[in-house]
Amino acid sequence: MPSSAVSSSPLRIGLVGFGTVGSAVARILTESSPVGLVLTRIANRSVARKRVDWIPPSVIWTDSVDDLLAPSAPVDILVELVGGLDPAGNWVRRALSAGKSVVTANKKLIAFHGPELESLARAHNAHLLFGAAVAGGIPVIPGIEHGLSGDRITRVEGILNGTCNFILSAMESGSDYAAVLADAQHRGYAEADPTEDVGGFDARAKLAILMRLAMRVHVAPDEIETRPITTVSAVDFAYAAELNSTIRQIARAEITPTGLAAVVSPMLIPRRSPLAWSTGTENMVITTGAHGGDVVFSGHGAGGHPTAVAVVSDLVNLAHGLGRAPIPFAPAHISAEPEVPHYIRFLVRDRPGIVAAIAGALAAEEINLNAILQKPGCCADSLPFVVTVEPCRASSLARALAAITRMDFVLTPPFDMQILEK
Amino acid sequence: MPSSAVSSSPLRIGLVGFGTVGSAVARILTESSPVGLVLTRIANRSVARKRVDWIPPSVIWTDSVDDLLAPSAPVDILVELVGGLDPAGNWVRRALSAGKSVVTANKKLIAFHGPELESLARAHNAHLLFGAAVAGGIPVIPGIEHGLSGDRITRVEGILNGTCNFILSAMESGSDYAAVLADAQHRGYAEADPTEDVGGFDARAKLAILMRLAMRVHVAPDEIETRPITTVSAVDFAYAAELNSTIRQIARAEITPTGLAAVVSPMLIPRRSPLAWSTGTENMVITTGAHGGDVVFSGHGAGGHPTAVAVVSDLVNLAHGLGRAPIPFAPAHISAEPEVPHYIRFLVRDRPGIVAAIAGALAAEEINLNAILQKPGCCADSLPFVVTVEPCRASSLARALAAITRMDFVLTPPFDMQILEK
Repeated sequence: MPSSAVSSSPLRIGLVGFGTVGSAVARILTESSPVGLVLTRIANRSVARKRVDWIPPSVIWTDSVDDLLAPSAPVDILVELVGGLDPAGNWVRRALSAGKSVVTANKKLIAFHGPELESLARAHNAHLLFGAAVAGGIPVIPGIEHGLSGDRITRVEGILNGTCNFILSAMESGSDYAAVLADAQHRGYAEADPTEDVGGFDARAKLAILMRLAMRVHVAPDEIETRPITTVSAVDFAYAAELNSTIRQIARAEITPTGLAAVVSPMLIPRRSPLAWSTGTENMVITTGAHGGDVVFSGHGAGGHPTAVAVVSDLVNLAHGLGRAPIPFAPAHISAEPEVPHYIRFLVRDRPGIVAAIAGALAAEEINLNAILQKPGCCADSLPFVVTVEPCRASSLARALAAITRMDFVLTPPFDMQILEK
Repeated sequence: MPSSAVSSSPLRIGLVGFGTVGSAVARILTESSPVGLVLTRIANRSVARKRVDWIPPSVIWTDSVDDLLAPSAPVDILVELVGGLDPAGNWVRRALSAGKSVVTANKKLIAFHGPELESLARAHNAHLLFGAAVAGGIPVIPGIEHGLSGDRITRVEGILNGTCNFILSAMESGSDYAAVLADAQHRGYAEADPTEDVGGFDARAKLAILMRLAMRVHVAPDEIETRPITTVSAVDFAYAAELNSTIRQIARAEITPTGLAAVVSPMLIPRRSPLAWSTGTENMVITTGAHGGDVVFSGHGAGGHPTAVAVVSDLVNLAHGLGRAPIPFAPAHISAEPEVPHYIRFLVRDRPGIVAAIAGALAAEEINLNAILQKPGCCADSLPFVVTVEPCRASSLARALAAITRMDFVLTPPFDMQILEK
């Protein structure tokens, strides 16, 4: 039989985590009853308060994941939707070691421990699928694994965190960071502690996964330079507009002639770039292949239902015996520092000679000024103005900015970000 | 073993058709030597003139596809890149009947005979993969099959023909249809007989395939209303710009409350729609899911190398035992005629009362006028002007336009197209 045949007895699903995504997964499984799949167990802390009446009575609710992992448990596939390294990682390891396949949306676990877990799965004849771990409802992972494996992908870039995109696109419309964050928290788009999102760590984990699948290099996520969006201010959007650009949190990795480069950071994006078109909680991924050129994927990257679509699609694949191709990858380190143009915002006490002093400090690092922008109508004792510079290394720029920060007219450390070129 | 393991002896590939795509496939296979795959045979008419020196000497060139299909031939997978219903369909049937898997980019064959060929493949334990049949290098088919099977997709729309998109986006920049077509033919983007492309038949076949995979309905392609782009003229782009819109060939299918609707036609596209951003030979597909919302895929839909990426990706999937999930679909008919707004361009000999006469004919079909646009500076004896109307059925509009065409001031039959709403 071809591997796509559905096995005679349905695969039994044990679901851990009945939150937004988990309940959406259960809803789709209950409503559409995909062939070859049956939900048997739901585990959640204090499960009593989670019970809903639309789940079939045959499904057993439990507080204990052990009830899903026991050898006698009627579970062939563990769906892990709790997230985080612990205890989720432990459950996933136990399931795989017992020969149960795992479907997860846990980007952190896959970014940090994916290769080890994949080996474990192979050793125990099980599958590990995580199509929901990056860009939720957008089939980026299946697209790369099943549709772009014939290419050699040299660059991946995108908007991988819906919370940051929501915040930055609202700031673009004139709102203030603190107000937008509070609104995002109120709507459930941002956590009470938003550090994972606004600090760039969520996007970093997703970028590490995409690098492994698309570019076939495995890097420790902590090697990827990660800058927060918290330092972007309203005035930056005003200057961005003058530069016919906007600001987005971009995750970007590239195989360059001098090595591997990767960064997660707010960046200045020209209006003509597709990355500037993404608003609200949308996600977007652009892959660049040696043979096929650019492919753009976009849509709703997060939220219960889009993410649930990715989880259920993985389950449907397993029901048809379709696992993942073991595309080889190599351990790698971030070694390249590409020369890119930068945007720098200064806040100074005005006096003659400021531009000359700044230009001098930049010139000492062989960095050329490109444009100087200053919005009229501001106060001489606290004057924001912006400089753009021609392509340079981030380390050279950091040295120049450190020298400038020591100058007497500088009120706060300058804020800089890459200008995205193509 | 999980189905993703690579079998011990490599799968032997016989390639039929050594044109632009075929040679790009051979180039990628030769340069990147994917694990588990080996090219053994290349067949092409008058193969001697096709020979190139970079193909390994172990590969045998032949004029005859029989050399690939014979029971003794060292071919496990037939890669069919000739296209058309005959003789390609015959080769594909013979291969599948012999238990050889088939990878093809042949949209026409798959659109008209896909279900029959899939049954044949299943009956003989073979696989039929056609990821390259729609949108070439953009992984729309793998994305839908592996990443969106957990959703219920209710609408598919997109730009599926790069030739038409090249022509229309060049006309948007001010060129004339005939000149652009000649340029497209010169660049190799359009055939000497461009009817398949500009008539909409190529996009129609691709839409039929997407409807089956995404919406799980199989319709005979000839049921899909198909209008050519040849009737779009330069003046339409001038009016489109006034309406903050442009014109693209759109393929669109939707499950509506009153049945299934599908059409391939030039349409007026608001600038804010992602479909308006596609230029040159780019393709774009937007799926709308009940759970996951809109997903946008875009990139290079045609050309040798992008299409070859899709073919090689299918081969890599087969090398890992990954076929397609037999997602069920039902035979269906186009039965719905959605009410949509329309753009209508008239060419008239000016005289008093024209607008009243046109408005009267439209009102007789209960169609409401929305806007009347007339660019200044034209001649009273051959005056083009444009009317937009509120949502109406195409059949009502056709009756109204037939009545108007009979009026004495009308010089040529009016040109109408849908205005894309969302």
